[in-house]
Amino acid sequence: MAAYPPAYLQGLLGDAEAEAALSDTALIEAMLTVETALAAAQAEVGEIPSEAAAAIAKAVKAFKPDMAALTSATERDGVAVPGLVAQVRASCDGPARHYLHWGATSQDIADTAMALCLRRAIDLSTARLDAVIAALAALADQHRDTVMAGRTRGQQATPTPFGLKAAGWMLPLLRWRKRLNDVRADALVLSFGGAAGTAAAYGPKARQIETALAKRLGLAVAPMPTHTQRDGMVALGGWFAGVAGSLAKLAGDVLLLAQSEIGELRIGGAGGSSTMPNKRNPTRAEAILALADRASAQIGALHRAAAHEHERGGAAWMTEWQVLPDLAVIAASALRHTMNLLEALEVDAAAMRRNLESSNGLLLAEAASFLLAGQMPRPDAQALVKEACAETARAGRHLFEVLADRCDDAIDWAALRDPARHLGDAHAMVDRALAEARDAVSTLKEDPQ
Amino acid sequence: MAAYPPAYLQGLLGDAEAEAALSDTALIEAMLTVETALAAAQAEVGEIPSEAAAAIAKAVKAFKPDMAALTSATERDGVAVPGLVAQVRASCDGPARHYLHWGATSQDIADTAMALCLRRAIDLSTARLDAVIAALAALADQHRDTVMAGRTRGQQATPTPFGLKAAGWMLPLLRWRKRLNDVRADALVLSFGGAAGTAAAYGPKARQIETALAKRLGLAVAPMPTHTQRDGMVALGGWFAGVAGSLAKLAGDVLLLAQSEIGELRIGGAGGSSTMPNKRNPTRAEAILALADRASAQIGALHRAAAHEHERGGAAWMTEWQVLPDLAVIAASALRHTMNLLEALEVDAAAMRRNLESSNGLLLAEAASFLLAGQMPRPDAQALVKEACAETARAGRHLFEVLADRCDDAIDWAALRDPARHLGDAHAMVDRALAEARDAVSTLKEDPQ
Amino acid sequence: MAAYPPAYLQGLLGDAEAEAALSDTALIEAMLTVETALAAAQAEVGEIPSEAAAAIAKAVKAFKPDMAALTSATERDGVAVPGLVAQVRASCDGPARHYLHWGATSQDIADTAMALCLRRAIDLSTARLDAVIAALAALADQHRDTVMAGRTRGQQATPTPFGLKAAGWMLPLLRWRKRLNDVRADALVLSFGGAAGTAAAYGPKARQIETALAKRLGLAVAPMPTHTQRDGMVALGGWFAGVAGSLAKLAGDVLLLAQSEIGELRIGGAGGSSTMPNKRNPTRAEAILALADRASAQIGALHRAAAHEHERGGAAWMTEWQVLPDLAVIAASALRHTMNLLEALEVDAAAMRRNLESSNGLLLAEAASFLLAGQMPRPDAQALVKEACAETARAGRHLFEVLADRCDDAIDWAALRDPARHLGDAHAMVDRALAEARDAVSTLKEDPQ
Amino acid sequence: MAAYPPAYLQGLLGDAEAEAALSDTALIEAMLTVETALAAAQAEVGEIPSEAAAAIAKAVKAFKPDMAALTSATERDGVAVPGLVAQVRASCDGPARHYLHWGATSQDIADTAMALCLRRAIDLSTARLDAVIAALAALADQHRDTVMAGRTRGQQATPTPFGLKAAGWMLPLLRWRKRLNDVRADALVLSFGGAAGTAAAYGPKARQIETALAKRLGLAVAPMPTHTQRDGMVALGGWFAGVAGSLAKLAGDVLLLAQSEIGELRIGGAGGSSTMPNKRNPTRAEAILALADRASAQIGALHRAAAHEHERGGAAWMTEWQVLPDLAVIAASALRHTMNLLEALEVDAAAMRRNLESSNGLLLAEAASFLLAGQMPRPDAQALVKEACAETARAGRHLFEVLADRCDDAIDWAALRDPARHLGDAHAMVDRALAEARDAVSTLKEDPQ
Repeated sequence: MAAYPPAYLQGLLGDAEAEAALSDTALIEAMLTVETALAAAQAEVGEIPSEAAAAIAKAVKAFKPDMAALTSATERDGVAVPGLVAQVRASCDGPARHYLHWGATSQDIADTAMALCLRRAIDLSTARLDAVIAALAALADQHRDTVMAGRTRGQQATPTPFGLKAAGWMLPLLRWRKRLNDVRADALVLSFGGAAGTAAAYGPKARQIETALAKRLGLAVAPMPTHTQRDGMVALGGWFAGVAGSLAKLAGDVLLLAQSEIGELRIGGAGGSSTMPNKRNPTRAEAILALADRASAQIGALHRAAAHEHERGGAAWMTEWQVLPDLAVIAASALRHTMNLLEALEVDAAAMRRNLESSNGLLLAEAASFLLAGQMPRPDAQALVKEACAETARAGRHLFEVLADRCDDAIDWAALRDPARHLGDAHAMVDRALAEARDAVSTLKEDPQ
Repeated sequence: MAAYPPAYLQGLLGDAEAEAALSDTALIEAMLTVETALAAAQAEVGEIPSEAAAAIAKAVKAFKPDMAALTSATERDGVAVPGLVAQVRASCDGPARHYLHWGATSQDIADTAMALCLRRAIDLSTARLDAVIAALAALADQHRDTVMAGRTRGQQATPTPFGLKAAGWMLPLLRWRKRLNDVRADALVLSFGGAAGTAAAYGPKARQIETALAKRLGLAVAPMPTHTQRDGMVALGGWFAGVAGSLAKLAGDVLLLAQSEIGELRIGGAGGSSTMPNKRNPTRAEAILALADRASAQIGALHRAAAHEHERGGAAWMTEWQVLPDLAVIAASALRHTMNLLEALEVDAAAMRRNLESSNGLLLAEAASFLLAGQMPRPDAQALVKEACAETARAGRHLFEVLADRCDDAIDWAALRDPARHLGDAHAMVDRALAEARDAVSTLKEDPQ
Repeated sequence: MAAYPPAYLQGLLGDAEAEAALSDTALIEAMLTVETALAAAQAEVGEIPSEAAAAIAKAVKAFKPDMAALTSATERDGVAVPGLVAQVRASCDGPARHYLHWGATSQDIADTAMALCLRRAIDLSTARLDAVIAALAALADQHRDTVMAGRTRGQQATPTPFGLKAAGWMLPLLRWRKRLNDVRADALVLSFGGAAGTAAAYGPKARQIETALAKRLGLAVAPMPTHTQRDGMVALGGWFAGVAGSLAKLAGDVLLLAQSEIGELRIGGAGGSSTMPNKRNPTRAEAILALADRASAQIGALHRAAAHEHERGGAAWMTEWQVLPDLAVIAASALRHTMNLLEALEVDAAAMRRNLESSNGLLLAEAASFLLAGQMPRPDAQALVKEACAETARAGRHLFEVLADRCDDAIDWAALRDPARHLGDAHAMVDRALAEARDAVSTLKEDPQ
Repeated sequence: MAAYPPAYLQGLLGDAEAEAALSDTALIEAMLTVETALAAAQAEVGEIPSEAAAAIAKAVKAFKPDMAALTSATERDGVAVPGLVAQVRASCDGPARHYLHWGATSQDIADTAMALCLRRAIDLSTARLDAVIAALAALADQHRDTVMAGRTRGQQATPTPFGLKAAGWMLPLLRWRKRLNDVRADALVLSFGGAAGTAAAYGPKARQIETALAKRLGLAVAPMPTHTQRDGMVALGGWFAGVAGSLAKLAGDVLLLAQSEIGELRIGGAGGSSTMPNKRNPTRAEAILALADRASAQIGALHRAAAHEHERGGAAWMTEWQVLPDLAVIAASALRHTMNLLEALEVDAAAMRRNLESSNGLLLAEAASFLLAGQMPRPDAQALVKEACAETARAGRHLFEVLADRCDDAIDWAALRDPARHLGDAHAMVDRALAEARDAVSTLKEDPQ
C-alpha cells in the first residue's frame, strides 16, 4: 500500500522510535489493551463475570486484525473502534462476544489508547530532553572562557563567552522540562463516559469501574468525561511545539555560526553534496528548523481543533488525530537531531577569536563609551565613539588606538583591548544557569557534565 | 518499519491514489526517470556519448534501491539524491558510472521528480473536481424548485431553492477549475541549474540540454533555475488548500442539514456507532472538514517556506517536501469524499418544506415588510412586521394571518403564503451558474447532468 | 492618522480595556516607568548619584512624546526605545541626560515594559475568567435536572442534563485557571542584559541593580537575560489562545442550540438584521468563534517567532510584538463576550424536552440494548434494537412501544420511557466538577452560585 | 480611544497609505457610497423615484457618523451596516428614509464596500510591485559581471554573478504580477443578493439593478451572490501573502549578506542602537521578514474562514474582516520597505570578491572535478578533488595549486583560477529574466533601468 511521507525521509524528518509508539500497530494494540483492562475492571467490581473478562483477554491475545477491512470500516464509521470491536467479536463467542466493549463508546477506547501511546512518546522525548540539557550544561561549563563575538540583529555587538550562549540554549529547555509535569498529568487521563458522556451504559458501578480501570492503566481520572474537553491535548501539543521551537533557536544559531565565512562551529560528519566535493552541509540543524516550522503550523490546527461540538464532535477530533501525534514525532525527531548534533559539534575557538578581532575593536564601542562617560556627558561620549568607529572602519586601525589618540585622559586603552576583560556578569550567569540545571534534572545533580 | 499516520486512517483522512502518486516508490522512480532523461538529452545534443545514455538507462532499469541505506544517507545528506545516485553508481560501471548525474545538482533532480509526481496528483484531483462539478450541476438543475429555508447566521431567514444552494457549492469549485491552468503551468517546471544555479557544470550546451530534457519530460522551462523561487509551489499549495476550503463549505452545510432535528439531507450508508444502534454518523462530511482544517495549517507552513536562502536553501526546502505533497493528498481525499457523499446524498424535500413551514411564516417577514412598504414608510412597515413576528411567536398563528388582521389594506395575504412565491431571482441564478459550468467543464458541455 | 482595524469593530472583535493596557500610550508610559525605576535602582545600589535618579524621574514626569518623530525613528531603528530615549534626553540636561538608560539596551527596556503591560492584560483576563467560571458553576448547579438530548457528531445520542454540559464548558477553563500560575511567573520576568546579554555596561554591581529593579517593578529575575529565550512568551500566548479555544467550544454549542429549528438556548438582546425583522443573530457566540479562529493563527506565528538569532534577534522579535498583544486582546475580548453571553443566556427547558421527545425514544436505543442484553447476547440485543429503531422511524411509534411488542420479556418498558431515568452518573459528575471549581476559584469557595 | 497595534509601529510594521485605504473612515465612506449608488441604480431602472435617490445622495453627503454609537451597534448586531443605516435614516426623512438600503442585506453593502477599499489597496501594492520589479531589473542588469560566492545551504558553493541573484529575486515578483489580473477580477465583484441570496426584496428588476450598480461602481457581476463563496477573497489573500513571501526571500538574503563578517551588502541609513555606537541594524529587511511571517499565519486563518454556513455565515465572515485587510497592509508595507531598501542598497563588490577568494578556490571544486572528468572516471575525479580540498583547508594553498601539483595533465590550472571563468550560463539567464520583465511590466518596456 502506498504511503506518505516517503519512508526514506524517516531518519531526516521523522523518528523511528516515536513513530513506533504511535503507529497503527501500537494504536491497535493499545485499543485492545484498553478493552481487556475494561473487562478486567468490570469483573473486579462485579459488573460482569470473571470468566467473561478472562475470555476477552484470551480472544484479544489471539486476535489478528484484518487491516484492509479495518481501513474500510474506519472510512465508513469515522473512527476505528467499531470496526475493530466487530472484528474481535467475530473472532470469539459466548461471554467474550457479549461483554466486550460493555458500556463503552468509541471515544472512551480511542482516547484512552491514544493516551497510552502518547505516554510512550512523552517518555521518549523526556529522556532525550534530559540528555540534551545535560549536553548543553557540559558545553556551557566547558566554554565559559571561550570568548566570541556577541551578535545582535546580525551584527557584531559586544564580546560574550560561548558558554553563555550554550547556557542560553539550555535554559528554555530546562523550563519546558519543568512545565512537563503538569502537561503530562493533564494529558494522560482515562477517557470514560459512554455514548454521550453520562456513563449511563456502564451501569450503577460506573465510577468504581472507572477507578479500577484508571489504576490498571496508570492514568488519571477526570471529574467528568473529557470527550469534548481537549485543553489537555492542546497543552500537550503546545509543549511538543514549544520544545521544537526552543531547539530551533539552537539550530538557527548553529547554522549561522557554521557559515563558510564564519566557521565558528562545525557539525562533524555533516552531509555531502551530489556534485560539490567541497560541501559539508549542516543537515541536522536544517532538519530541526524544518521540524519546528512544521510544528508552528500544526499547533495552530490543534488549537483550532479544541472546539468539539455538543457531547462528542467528529471533524475536530479527526484533526486532532492527525496533528497531535505528528507533533509528538516532530519533537522527538528534533530532540534526536539535537542530541546527535551536540555530540558531533566542533567548536573552533580560534575562529571565534579571529572573527572577534577582525572588527578592530568595533565591538568594544559600547565599553569605550561607558569608559569615557566617566569623564564627559554620555551623549558626548557616544558621539566621540561613533566618530572613532567611523575612523576605525576607514583607516583599519583598532578602535582603542583611535580613541587613545583622540582622548587626552587617563584611560589605559592598550590594557583594555582584550575582549575577555569586557564580559560583564557572564561567568556568574553561567553558574546560575548550571545551578538551575542541577536542581531540575536528576542526572545532573552530582556533576553538571 | 513503523509509520505515521496509521494505515487504517488512509481511507478516511488520506487517499490511496494520491499517496501512490507521491509515495517513496513513485518519487524514487521519478528521480531515476529524470536521471535517465537527463542522460538521453545530453546524448541528444552531443554532450555525452550515446552509449553512456543507453548504459544509464539500462542500469536504472535493473536498479533496486536499498531503502535502509537510502534512509541513512538521506538523514546524513539532507536530501535523497546523493545517496540514490551513489547506489545507482555502485550498481553499474564504465560510462554509466561516469556520466550519471552529469552536471546536475541534487535539487535539479529532486525538484523535477517532485514536479512529475505532482503532475499525477494534480491530474487526479482535476478529474475528481470535474466529477464533483458535474454532480453539483446536476443537483442544482434537479432541485431548482425544491423550496427550503434559507438560513443566515444560524437562523431561518427567507425561502430559497435547494438548487441554488447546490449552485453556490459549485461555483467556487468552477473558479478553482479555471485557476488551475496557470497554477499548473507555473508549478510543472523543469528544475535545471546545477550546483549554485548557473548551470556551469552542464557545460556550454546547458541551454540545449535543458530544452531537450524539458521536452522529454513534458515540463516547462524557466528563464533561470527555480531553486529558490518557490512561488509556483506556493500557488499550487494554495490551489489544493483552496479547493479543500471550498469543499468544506459544502461539507459544513451537509453536516448542519443532516442534524437529527433538521433532517433535510442524509448521507446514505453513513457510519455506525460502536454502542448506539440509532446513530448514522455523517462521516464523509466530517472528514472533509478535518482535511480542510489541516490544509489551512499546512498552507501557512508552505508560505513560510517560500524564502530559501542564497542560491539554495536547506530547512525551507525540507518543510516544502513535508507540506506540499500533504496538501495534494488532502485535496484528493476531500474531493473523493465529496464525490462519494454526493452520490449517496438523500435530499428530503418534505423535511425541507416542513422546517420551512414550522416558523409560521416568520421567514416571510422581509417579504411582508416590502409588501407593506408600498403603503407606508418603510421603517413603519418594519416596525409593524416586527410586532407581528412577536405575536406569531407568542400565539402560534401564521405571520400572514396576524398581518391580515392588523392591516386594513389591499394585500391578499392568503395568496402570498406560499414560500415558492418569494424566491426572487433564484431560478435565473441557477441558470446562469449552470451556463458557466457548461462553458468551463467539457464533460458538461452537452448536458449539464 | 489612519488605523487598522476599524475603530467600530473594537466592541465586537477587540476589547477596550485590554487594548488600553497594551496601547501605545500604555507601552510608552511603561518604557518610561522602566527607565525611571532603573535609575532609582542604580542610585539605590550606589551606581549613579541619587540626584541623577531624581532628575530622571522629574524629566520623565514632564515628558510628552512627539508621536510622529517616534514613528519615524521606530521605522528607522526597528524598535522604539532609541527614539524615545533620544526624545527624553532632548527634554532634559545634566545628570538626567547623562545617566538616563545607563547600561541598558533597547530590549531590556522594551521587554520589561511589555511585561508590565502584559501583567495588566493577564490580570484583566484572570478576573474575567473567574467570573465566567462562577457563572458556569451556577449554570451547572441550576440545571442539573434539566434534561436534554445529548448529541454526538451532530446526531441525537442519549439524554443528558444541561447542567452537565455547562460543567463540561467550565472544567477546561478551570484547568486553564490553574495553569496560569506557572505561565504568569515565567512571563513576568525582568529583561536585564545590556547590549549582548552580559550586562557588561551595567558595571560590576549589575546583579544588585537587577535585584533592586525587579523588586521595584514586581517582576521575577532570570538566571541570565531572556533576550532570545522566548519560551515564556510562547507559553503565555498558548494560554491566551487556549482560553479562547475553550470558549469557542461553549460558543459553538450555543450557536448550534440557538438554531431556529432547535431553539434550546437564546441570547437575550441578540443582534438585529438590516432587512429581516424576524432575525435575532447570535452575535456574541459568533464573535467568540472568530476570535478563537484568529488565535489559532496567531499562536502559530508566535511559536515560529521563538527562535531569535544569536544574542538578540530582529525579525522574530517584531513578529512577537504584533502577535502576543493581539492574543491578549483576543482572550480578553472572548472572555468579555462570554460573560455577557452567559448573563443574557435564556435556557428553554421546554424546547429541550420537546426535542428530546421528538425522536420517539430513538435516543434511548443504547439504554434499550443494555436492558435487553440481560436476556440475550448483546449483538442480538443490538440487532433487535436496530430493527426496532427502523420501525420507530417508519411508523412514528415510540421505540419502547415497538420493543414492548417485540419482546416477550419482563422489562417494564412504559415505566422506563422517561429520559430522566437514563442519566447515568451525570449528577455525581456535576457535583465533582463543582467541587473542583470551589477548590480552585476563591470567590466560589463559599457558595458555588 | 485605546488602540492596538501601537501607532508608533505604523511606519515599521504597518503602512499609512494602505491603512488609509482600509480604515474605518474609508470603509464607512465606501458603505455610504454603495448605498448611494444602489439608490441611483434603482432610480435608473425605475424601481424607486429619482427624487428618493437624490435625497439619499444628499443625506449621505451631509452625514457624520456617531462612532461610539456605531461601535455599540456593531457589537450588538455583529456587522456595522444596520447601525450605520439606522444613523443615516435618523438624519433624513421622507423618501430618503423610506428607500435607503432598499432590498439590500448587510452583506451586500459590507462586501461591496470592502471590494472598493481593497481595490485601492490592490492598486497601491501593484504600483509598488512594479517599482520593485523595475529596481530589481536595474540591479540585475547593472551587476551581471559582479562575481560573488554562490552559497547553498549556508556554505560557499560555486561562483555566481550578483546580477543573477537580483534576477532571482525579481522573477517570482514578476509572476505574482502576472497572476494579479485573474486574482483582481475574481475579488472585485459586486455583492448583490439580499437577505438570503435570492435578491427577492430587490423586486423583479433585481438583475437590471445589479447590472446598473456594478457599472456605477466598476465592479464585476457574479452569476449568483458571493455571500458564502469566499474563494475570491482566499485567492486575493494568497496573493498578498505570496508577494510578502517572495519579498522575504530577498530580505533574508540581504540580512545574511549584511552580516558583519560578510559585509557584501549594506542598507544605507540603517537603524541605530540605543547603546552601541558601532551598530547599523538592517531594520527594513527585518521588518519584511516579520511581515511575511505574519502573512503566513494570516493566510491560514483566511483559508479556514472560507466555509460560511448556509446562505450567510457569521463567525467566518468576521474572521475574514480581520485577516484580509491585514494581509493587504502587510503586502503594502513589505513592498514599501523593499522599495526603500533597494534604493538605499549598497553593493560592496570588493567584499564579494574578497569572500569569494577567501576559500582558496574551494568553491571551484565542482568545476575542477568536471575538468578532471575529461581525463578519468568521474567518481575518481571527485575523490581526487575531495582530497585536494582537504589539503587546501589544511595547508592554506589554493585548490588549483594543489591540483596542479597532483595532476600530471594538460589542464592550465593557473589560467582557470579566475572565478569569472566559471559562471556557466548566468549571463544568458539574466538576459532572459530581463526580457520577461520587459514583456510584463509596461514601465520597463523601453528601458530595463
